[in-house]
Order: sequence, then structure tokens, then C-alpha cells
Amino acid sequence: MSVDRDELVAFYTQLQTDLCTRFAALDGTASFGTERWERSGGGGGTTRVLQGDGRLEKAAINVSTVWGPVPSKLSERLASRASEFFATGISMIFHPLNPHAPTMHANLRYFETDTGESWFGGGTDLTPYYLYEDDATLFHTALSDVCERHGIADYPGWKQRCDEYFFLPHRGEARGVGGIFYDHLTEDMDAVDTFQRELGSAIADVYTEIVDRRADTPYGPDQERWHLQRRGRYAEFNLAIDQGTKFGLETGARTESVLASLPPRVRWDHSATPESGTPEADLVKVLQRPREWT
Amino acid sequence: MSVDRDELVAFYTQLQTDLCTRFAALDGTASFGTERWERSGGGGGTTRVLQGDGRLEKAAINVSTVWGPVPSKLSERLASRASEFFATGISMIFHPLNPHAPTMHANLRYFETDTGESWFGGGTDLTPYYLYEDDATLFHTALSDVCERHGIADYPGWKQRCDEYFFLPHRGEARGVGGIFYDHLTEDMDAVDTFQRELGSAIADVYTEIVDRRADTPYGPDQERWHLQRRGRYAEFNLAIDQGTKFGLETGARTESVLASLPPRVRWDHSATPESGTPEADLVKVLQRPREWT
Repeated sequence: MSVDRDELVAFYTQLQTDLCTRFAALDGTASFGTERWERSGGGGGTTRVLQGDGRLEKAAINVSTVWGPVPSKLSERLASRASEFFATGISMIFHPLNPHAPTMHANLRYFETDTGESWFGGGTDLTPYYLYEDDATLFHTALSDVCERHGIADYPGWKQRCDEYFFLPHRGEARGVGGIFYDHLTEDMDAVDTFQRELGSAIADVYTEIVDRRADTPYGPDQERWHLQRRGRYAEFNLAIDQGTKFGLETGARTESVLASLPPRVRWDHSATPESGTPEADLVKVLQRPREWT
Repeated sequence: MSVDRDELVAFYTQLQTDLCTRFAALDGTASFGTERWERSGGGGGTTRVLQGDGRLEKAAINVSTVWGPVPSKLSERLASRASEFFATGISMIFHPLNPHAPTMHANLRYFETDTGESWFGGGTDLTPYYLYEDDATLFHTALSDVCERHGIADYPGWKQRCDEYFFLPHRGEARGVGGIFYDHLTEDMDAVDTFQRELGSAIADVYTEIVDRRADTPYGPDQERWHLQRRGRYAEFNLAIDQGTKFGLETGARTESVLASLPPRVRWDHSATPESGTPEADLVKVLQRPREWT
């Protein structure tokens, strides 16, 4: 069973437009550029990036809808010997300027083949640079609430998958305080579609509230340095570990769109370990042992 | 046939000490710290890092000597079913503060197993942020001169391997203007050992000269921004592509030592493409089509 592709693409496109309006307002100074690109194998996308010195130092909200012959790297991952595929999705990332406001990432996606394989996947996670337990709880409660309203969703299982996925083995640390991660949802497609639509707006609501809380918190050069160091971990995850980034770069997706997720400024200071008892060390402690937040 | 391990380790250790003295003098303000670490499976290393605001913003000169049971990730890459291995080597990276001075990386290494496999490997490459053809020619001429003095060396072949290895497929760009790259040198070990010793000091001489030429060139915020953007490409290579980094992180080497190669400050500005006819665009043109420099 599959979904109405056109309707789904229309939804992702509308969500992109709505989110760009909302997050440009949240930013307060800059606006989202618009780049349309075509994929040589079929399809293309619209990359929308905001960069500046407002509340968001960099944000990207991208929609892509691609199709055509199955690339060999993709073929390895399929159960059936499909010759044609179709994929559409929206992905978003927000890197606030203020170290007290967390980074948020989310994506919603749908995939199908001409052999009848089809599934939804997606997820979202929050990466604070200073730990505000209230924010982590608010974020997870919003996700858990959406999941509870939909029989196809499994908050506890998806929360655990998120903790497992967004993990840097070489650092022994989670990327952040997690969220939810789901993939290969093949049953009851209409219900998943409805769930995804609700998730899309719930994420925007809860993240807007968190940024509103934190974006005007005073900070100094020490906090800024810590922020950029931790963004280094974010870049390590995206470049060395994330399967989506790897897959995008290997299958010839548009590089600037795939790497729009990277933080705008990053530091790698050698052996920069925070002193114990500091807020910086408190964050690391939580990243080393994922918690329940609801 | 294998080499005298103790003598080789003594050479790498002495080279590390000499280079730290020379490059601290070149830097002019900071000095190299010393961190000794132990590997749980056997062996360990000494990581020496300089960070500051002298001529070198960050430099790392690391020696490691490790041994023990062959890790499974390593086992896949061996021709024989070895149960024990021994590896020693020196690696170095220099990230100057001034955008006109290039980054230089080099490593010299030796590997053996209890089944009698043994080889030398190594290489060096130069990554300018602004192209000075004289510097690229000087660097390559120094390498070609050392190679010509040793029958076991093959400058043209190793230059080509370097161009192939230090390449970012997703950017369609080389990391820099190349150098030499060699691996699995299994014959005539004494001659290779002698060659490596000469290469070690030739690299230090030529790179010192290049930094001396460029480190006091005036520059402004636009050049600094370009520098940090290009360092982003360096981080992309090391984290997403470099086999040595991947192997180090996967086999449980000390993370801070493996990632000491990362640039101290980096920017990822979205779609930052230089205007044609500028010095920035001229550099990119050369990275897209490797040249002969001797």
C-alpha cells in the first residue's frame, strides 16, 4: 500500500513555507534564501537557508523529491530488486546564535520502489550546549503527547532508538538530549501520514518556545567558546557518523544542501575538558548517560 | 625481513623532539604540551600539541607505538591471518594563523605482524588557502629531490597517489596541492628506513621556509573568513573521508590524539563560492585540476 505522492509533496512544501515564515519571525533580522536544484537522475529540491546575526546564526529547511533508477549504494539497502525508486522528505536544522539556546534537527520522509516497498521514516532531536532540564522535558513531553494520540507511534521505543542513533562512539557521548527516531514504518500508511503532519507542527511549536526562553540569556566569551567547541562534536557526528549525510554525499545529492546542516562556526581546541562541577561538565555528564525526560 | 624496532621508535621519538623545538621557534610565542597515553591493548604514545596566537594557531606532532592482538577491523585488511601486530609512526599537522601560510600534514609509519608481513608507509601534503605557485613548486621540488636520491622512491607515482588520496569527491576538489603518498613498501627495508629519515628533515626544512615567507603577510577579515571556510573542507576530509582517521576512531585509538589534526577554528557558510577572477577562485581552479609542480 502506498500514499498519494502528490499530496505528500504538497504537504512537505507547504510545511517548508510555513516554517520559513515562522522561523524568520523568530530570528528577527534575516530571511530564508531559496535555491531550487535539479538532480541529474530525476527530481530535485528546494534548499532554504537563513544566515545572519539574529537569534538564528544559521538555519536550513530543505525539501527534496527525487526519483529514477536505483543507485547501487541504495540497492544494497533494499529487500527487493527494485529498478526505480521515489523519495520525498523535509529536513530542518536550527543553529541559534546564543549558547543557551539548543540546536534542533528534524526530518520527515517517505520512500517507495517500483517493487512495492514503501515506508515512512523520520525523527527529531535536541542538542543543548547548556542543560536546561525544563527544555528537555518540554521537548520530550511534546513528542510523547503526539505519539500518544496515534496508535502507530511508540514514544518509548523511538526515544531509545534516537538515543542509540545520535551517539558518538569515539566520544562516548550522545549528540544531545535526544528525541525520537523511527524508520521503515510500512503499515497503516494513512495513519502514519496523519501522525507526521501533527509531528511537524508540534516540533515547530515546542522549539519556538524553547528558543524564546533562551535566546536573550546573557553570555560571555567563555560560553561562546564552549558553544563552538560543542558544535565541533555536532560536525563530527554529521560528517563521520550520520548515515543520512554519508548516503547523500555518496549518491550524488547536492553537496551544499546535504551539508547545510553543519554549524556556521566551530572550534576544535585540543583536549578541552570542562572542570567538574561547572555547567559545562554537567551537560557532558547527561550526554554520557541518556535519561528519561517525561 | 623486518627492521630494528627499537631503533625506529628511537628515530621517531628523536624526530618528534627536534620538530617540536624547531616549530616552537617558528611559532615564536607558544610551546608544545606533552601528553603520554597508554593503549589498553598494548603500547601507547606521546601527543604533543601547540595552540596559541603565534604564527601557528595549532600544531600537533604525535608519536605512537602500539602492539598486541590484531583488532577485527585491522584483521580485514591483512593478507595473512596474523594474531599479533606492531605499529609505530609519527604524524604531524601545522595550521598557521595567517591565511597566506599553508597547512602541512605528514606521517611516517611502520607496521608488522607475527606472520611476517611488514611494511613502511607515509606521505605529506600541502594545503594552501591562497595559491603561491612558488611555494607549491618549492615543496614538490624538495620531495622530488629526496626521492631521486633513493632508488626505492618513486616521486611521479607517489605524487599521483597523493592527488588521488587527498581528494573530496563530494566537492570535486583536491584537499590542496598534494605532495607524495606511499604505502606497503615491503622490499629493501633498510633503504626505506634511510629514505624516511631524510624525508623527515626535508619536510621540516621546506615547510619552515614556506611559513617564513608567508606568515607576516597582511590580511583582513575577508581573507580570514575564506581561510576558515577552506579549513571546513579540511575538516570534511579528515572526518568523512580519511581512512587513517576512520581507522583510528574505529579501533579505539585515543580520540583527542587522532582528532588533534582538526583545524582550531572553522566556518561553514552556506554556498560560499568565490567570484571568478579572484585569488580565492584561482585556488579552487587548481584544486579541481591537479598540476605538475616540478
